[in-house]
This record gives sequence, structure tokens and C-alpha cells, in this order.
Amino acid sequence: MKQITGMTKQEGFRISQMTELTEEGMAVQAEGAVHRVRNLGEVVFVVLRQRDGLIQTVFQKDRFEAAGEIREGCTLKVWGTLRREERAPGGAEIAAEKVLILSSPASPLPLPIDRAVMKASLETRLDHRAVSLRNLRERARFRIQEGLVRGFRDYLYSQGFTEIHTPKIGAKGAEGGANIFKLSYFHKPAVLAQSPQFYKQMMVGVFDRVFETGPVFRAEKHNTRRHLNEYTSLDLEMGYIDSMEDVMGVETEFLRYAMELLNREYSRELELLNCQLPRITSIPALRFDEAKKLVSEVYGRPARAPYDLEPEEESLIGRYGREYLGSDFVFITHYPSKKRPFYAMDDPEDSRYTLSFDLLCRGVEITTGGQRIHDYQMLMKKMEARGMSEEGMEGYLEAFRCGMPPHGGLGIGLERLTVQLLGEDNVREGCLFPRDMGRLTP
Amino acid sequence: MKQITGMTKQEGFRISQMTELTEEGMAVQAEGAVHRVRNLGEVVFVVLRQRDGLIQTVFQKDRFEAAGEIREGCTLKVWGTLRREERAPGGAEIAAEKVLILSSPASPLPLPIDRAVMKASLETRLDHRAVSLRNLRERARFRIQEGLVRGFRDYLYSQGFTEIHTPKIGAKGAEGGANIFKLSYFHKPAVLAQSPQFYKQMMVGVFDRVFETGPVFRAEKHNTRRHLNEYTSLDLEMGYIDSMEDVMGVETEFLRYAMELLNREYSRELELLNCQLPRITSIPALRFDEAKKLVSEVYGRPARAPYDLEPEEESLIGRYGREYLGSDFVFITHYPSKKRPFYAMDDPEDSRYTLSFDLLCRGVEITTGGQRIHDYQMLMKKMEARGMSEEGMEGYLEAFRCGMPPHGGLGIGLERLTVQLLGEDNVREGCLFPRDMGRLTP
Repeated sequence: MKQITGMTKQEGFRISQMTELTEEGMAVQAEGAVHRVRNLGEVVFVVLRQRDGLIQTVFQKDRFEAAGEIREGCTLKVWGTLRREERAPGGAEIAAEKVLILSSPASPLPLPIDRAVMKASLETRLDHRAVSLRNLRERARFRIQEGLVRGFRDYLYSQGFTEIHTPKIGAKGAEGGANIFKLSYFHKPAVLAQSPQFYKQMMVGVFDRVFETGPVFRAEKHNTRRHLNEYTSLDLEMGYIDSMEDVMGVETEFLRYAMELLNREYSRELELLNCQLPRITSIPALRFDEAKKLVSEVYGRPARAPYDLEPEEESLIGRYGREYLGSDFVFITHYPSKKRPFYAMDDPEDSRYTLSFDLLCRGVEITTGGQRIHDYQMLMKKMEARGMSEEGMEGYLEAFRCGMPPHGGLGIGLERLTVQLLGEDNVREGCLFPRDMGRLTP
Repeated sequence: MKQITGMTKQEGFRISQMTELTEEGMAVQAEGAVHRVRNLGEVVFVVLRQRDGLIQTVFQKDRFEAAGEIREGCTLKVWGTLRREERAPGGAEIAAEKVLILSSPASPLPLPIDRAVMKASLETRLDHRAVSLRNLRERARFRIQEGLVRGFRDYLYSQGFTEIHTPKIGAKGAEGGANIFKLSYFHKPAVLAQSPQFYKQMMVGVFDRVFETGPVFRAEKHNTRRHLNEYTSLDLEMGYIDSMEDVMGVETEFLRYAMELLNREYSRELELLNCQLPRITSIPALRFDEAKKLVSEVYGRPARAPYDLEPEEESLIGRYGREYLGSDFVFITHYPSKKRPFYAMDDPEDSRYTLSFDLLCRGVEITTGGQRIHDYQMLMKKMEARGMSEEGMEGYLEAFRCGMPPHGGLGIGLERLTVQLLGEDNVREGCLFPRDMGRLTP
């Protein structure tokens, strides 16, 4: 019998550990994947890829040749001495004295990954995702994405929100409509969750404030730069609000918190991506009808769809935000009731509109939110007016029948937020393994 | 146009803010749901439920009657003065001066929630989940669950792991077998992920160390106390390991970290649940064959299934751990190759066994993990020997063809870990909205 007390493995030296005080000539050991080999004859530079950057090792010719076949895609363990070297990544390299080849690839890489910017098309990069993500810039986006999710959770924990995990297989879709993936669940008809909407509302009656970060599924038949059929949604829902502005306030504070976290702990990746994050002090909020009129006047684009914002209008609002309001983010409030789900609270001052909002980031919608109906009678009336059946919603409706506080919430599309912040033009760049109408693998 | 700068709402007084220094007679405002009303005639006690506990308000008869109908399930905003009161929850109450009824229920609650322990059966509590979770003990379990997930992430962040989000809809199941939910994805056959196994391995080639916390789906046709058809899996995968003991070491450290976090930040809930968390210094590890023999000898139960542990055997190993090893946790290592998936690394010393492990918590398996095959040729050989097709796995196999470091990982069933720590006897007690063969709602 053994006793496991913890990790016993000693991790090797990483380039991020290099500081002003690191000793020249220190004996070190480093592990990593061979990212690049530059053979100058008498010496060979072998650059290792580690989770936080590259580290250069230098081999004398005979030692390199004696080691076995060291090539791109091998993983190595190298022993040697550290020395400062201005021209190496991170300003240091390891003069290799001993090497162990931990593993070797069975074939060359299908596309070059050691360039600063990959030239391969998005389709090619997605086809070979496990390889293309080994490029430093490609992978750096997902470190930024980590920072966003982490910021979301940490900020909400600090505000007394409870994290929940709600089922993705259910009897009925929260948003309704045709965009639902269907499956057979032990011979019963079932659907994949379009959002955790019903569940997070039900949980407001339990924990007052809740959030969830998880996958949602939309069987939308668009293949655009902005749509994914499966994406990660950052959802929150909070009780005892005075108005939807409390929800918008939480989102503003989360974004400020996340930008600070990224600048503090993900600066290496931001630099690599050449990304300047927006500074957020406050976020302007325009009414839907006001925004629609504004961009049509300012940019001379006649408004067509009266009940919704077309992608081009959103883009112009983004431009207006930048040019006139000095903000990368713009809230749009009071969307028409017709285009919002049944649970949205109508504006008591004009029931054609709802107490709901979207948040645009650089001209693309990244959030939908608002105040919800909390009164059972009001909810039933709205469902009736829309000809909705209660089937599969009994548990949701029971929460309201038994009393719910005034509440509201929002959902943020993580991939969209990621690419909008990084200035990428396709949401797939912000998803490790995108699912769209044509793509089910890898 | 408005400017949103942050949350402007002032949250009311909560019982958790009550400290030694809180001023007697302080004017306060508090919000909450009416948890209990005790009408003594001249005075009425109205106990409000808030996210972190109960707070008692006291009304004079006339003020109570003038307020409108205050009953269980209403949500209120109460203004008054704070006074110490030994007999009230938290040692304080609010002498109410003004009240606003924020919302009222449409019907009485279908089951009583204000008892310390709910008497209703599990089935009844699950049928009325949004209501039964309003009971303080019922909801407290999910605060503990939050602490476990939070501890998992925070510990792994500190160890250089990157958080990933991988697709739940795919072309092929990672674990194989018949336990797969199938769906039609734009007229193509697709499946729901049984685990993020393939993706987390692929991402080891990118980030060296990764983790994911998300739903997984198993179409298992068992309806037992230990099975859910959808559950939350805490997954990690790490490269450059020396052996599977590095993975077991990480799990041991995570558990220690999580127990500390829970004791520090979730003590109110632990107390409410009357739960003593295990103290973990180290975790004993027994070999599969050794453990099998041991419990058969010590407890006189003949071993039947030679390649797997039966639930009763796991339970006896748990008992052995408690009685002889002083540990609530026991690792079982070297499971037979026959019962492990193709990607498990066979033991080079005896290929009938694998370098894999389970972790039992109080006699129930909560984790499966191990070292994985990282060599492309070895992987292909094992697939061939099992008659597996490469279809739908091209992206996975490409990662290996292009080189992967030695690696291993594990998956933890969050709901099982929760109930095992809390001493509940059904995994459904650790799931907000369980999905099993008979349950698709609420």
C-alpha cells in the first residue's frame, strides 16, 4: 500500500520564472514541446513551448546528434545551465548538457505553427484545431477567455451570488421557437437547453442571486460570422432589484472587474495579441427607438425592421458609441415586446416595449437581459395572450405561484465577448471547437 | 441617454452582517421572502429568508394589519430599528416601522419548508424542487457544492492549469459503448458528450495543463441511488507527468484545498447540515487485486466479478479505509485493462492491468483517472486490437500523430462527491434538477 500526500513531481524551469534576480549559471531542468529547431551546424537552437511561453535551449553539435532525432513535435526534458541572452525569448536560454526525448510525433505537422501570425485560413485552422492552437497567438485568445469567465465568477462571488448547475436536457425550451435541438430521452421527447433561463429564475426564489457558466444550444439555421450552434453562456439572475438598471449596473461592474483582472494577470497574452482593452468608467444607455432614429439620422441609413435592430444598425450604433460617446460598449434598452420572450416585463408606461436591454460591444450584441415578470397572474396572462401551453413548464410556474421577488438577469455570449474584445471578425476564433451548421468535428 | 456606472441599489441589512459591534437601535432596511409568520395577537413575528440566513422582524398588531396580507411566500421590504434578541435567528430582530409588500404568492406552498429537516420524500421534494429548495438545509447542500467547484478551479488556477470549454455535441462518444444519447444535428447523426476526454487530451498538447467543469451525459439504463443521466464533471488533464501518481497527488491536494475553503468560507452551511468534513493529510492507495483480496478476506465476502469492483466491494473497501487506514478516501489503482477505455495506458510490467485509478469516498467511486497513452503508434495498435474505427476521431488522432507529452488526468462526479461528503444516501440530493430514467422535469 502507498500513501499519496500530494504532487511529488518537481516542475521544470519556465521562462515566466525568469526575473532580474535569477542567477546566471544556475543549473536548471526544463520540459516542453519542440516548437522550432534552428540548426546552425556547430550549435543547434531548440525552442521549447511551455504553457506560459517559449524557452530556448542551445545544443552543441555532437550533443544534439547523440540525443536521437529531435524534431518539431517532440517533447523533451532538458538539463543545463541558465544564461542571459538578449536575443532569446524572455532574455534567457539554457545551455543544454543532457536531454531526454519524452515522446516523438509520428508525422510532420500539417501546418506551420511557429510563425507569429498563422497564415492558414480559418477553415484550415479549425480542421486541424488541436495543432493550430499550438501557435502562441491562437492559444492566447483562450487564456483571455479564461480571464473573462474567471472575472465573471469572482466578481459575482464577491456580490453574494451562488453558482448553480442546471440541466441541459429538458422537456421544453426556454426561449421557444424552432431553434431547438431535439432528442429522444429514454423514448420520451426532450430538448437541449437554449439557455438556463427557467432554472436561474426558479433559483432566484432560493438563493436570491445566482449565476451559471455553461453550454447552451441553438439550432439556428444561420451560418454567419456571429453565430454558433453551441456556445458558452455566462448567465446571472438577481432578486430584489429596483429596476433593470440594477442588472445593467452589475454587468458594468463585472466588465470593469474583468478588464482589471486581465490587465493584471494576463498581460503577457494581451501583449502577444497586441490588444488594448477598453477602459470602462460608465456605459451609455440608449432607448431602442432613440438609437434606431439616431443612427438613421447620423449615418443616413433608413431604418427598415421596426421591431428589431439589424446587424448593420448594431454596427452603426457601435460606431456612434465610439465617435460620439467615447465608449466601446453601448446599452440599448426598451426593446419591443413583440421581439422579446414571454417572461420579459412589459414597460408599465408603454406596454409595446419591455424593461429589457442588450449590450453591444463594438457594434455586436454580446448580452441580452432585462427585468422579468415575477407575478404569477401577469405571467399566466402573457402566456395566454401568446397562445402558449403550460406543458413541461409546471415546475417553472410553480415557483411563481408560490411567490417570487422582483428580479432580472442577463446572459453573455462568452465567445462573442472574447472576439469583440480582441478585434477578431469571426466568433469561431473565440471558440476552441466551434459547432456550426457545417461543422461537427473535430 | 443615461450613463450606467454600476450598481446603485443599496442592499438591505442581512443577518450575516450582524456583529458584536452592530449598533442597537440602528435604523435598518431589510428585504426577504416571508419564511414564517407567527401571529401572537398583539405582536406578529415575520421571519424573512435571505440568501445567507433568516432575519426576524416584529410587527405591532395594527401595523401588521394595515400592511395588507403578509403571508408565507410574500416578498417584503421592511424598515425599522435593529435590536438584540437572543431568541431570534442570529441574535437580532428588526422592530418594524414600515413595510412594503414587493410580491405575493398566488397560492399556498405545496409542502412546508420552514422545518429544520423536511419530512417529505425525495420524490416529492424533487417534484416541487423550486419550492423545496427554499428550505434552509435543502439549499445549503448546494452552497457546499459551490465551494467544491470553486476549490477545484482555484486550486488548479494556482497550479497553472488553463480552463477550457469543449463541445457537448459531437460526432463520437469518448467512452464508447451503448450509453450515448443520440440526436440529429442538421440531418447528421450526432451524440452528446459522455465526457470531455478527447478534448482535454487534445488541449494538453496546447496548454500542458487544462481543466473543465461542465455537464456530461450518460444514457445508462440504471436507476440507482448512485446514477444520474446528466451530471457535472470536474475534469483535469496534465502533461509531463512522471507517473499516474502525479495525477493522484493533484487530486489529494485539491481535496485538501477544498476542505480548507469550505471550513473557512462555508462554515454556516456546514453547521446547518451538521457536517464534519474529513481531514485529509494523505490518501492510501491499494492495488485493485490487493483491495479485492483484502475485503474478501477481512469481511468474508467472496469476490465474484474478476475485472471490476462491485458496489458492495467498494462499500467494504470504504469500511476498511475507515476501520484500518483511518481514511475516508481510498485510491484503487491498476484496474484491469479489459474494463478501461482504449486510451488508458497499460502497465508496462503487466499489460493485463492499466496505470489507472479510481478514488472512493466513503465507499463510493467519485473519480476515475489515470495515465493515458501518448504515443500515436501505441494508440493505433490498441484501437485496432479492440476493433475500433477511426471515424469521427480524426481530430483526436491528429493531436497524437503530431506529438503529445506523457500525460494523465481524471474526472470527478460533482454530485457524488457532494453527497458523499454530506452523508446523503442518494446522489439526487446533490443535484438541483436531477435527470434519471424517469425524470425529465422540472
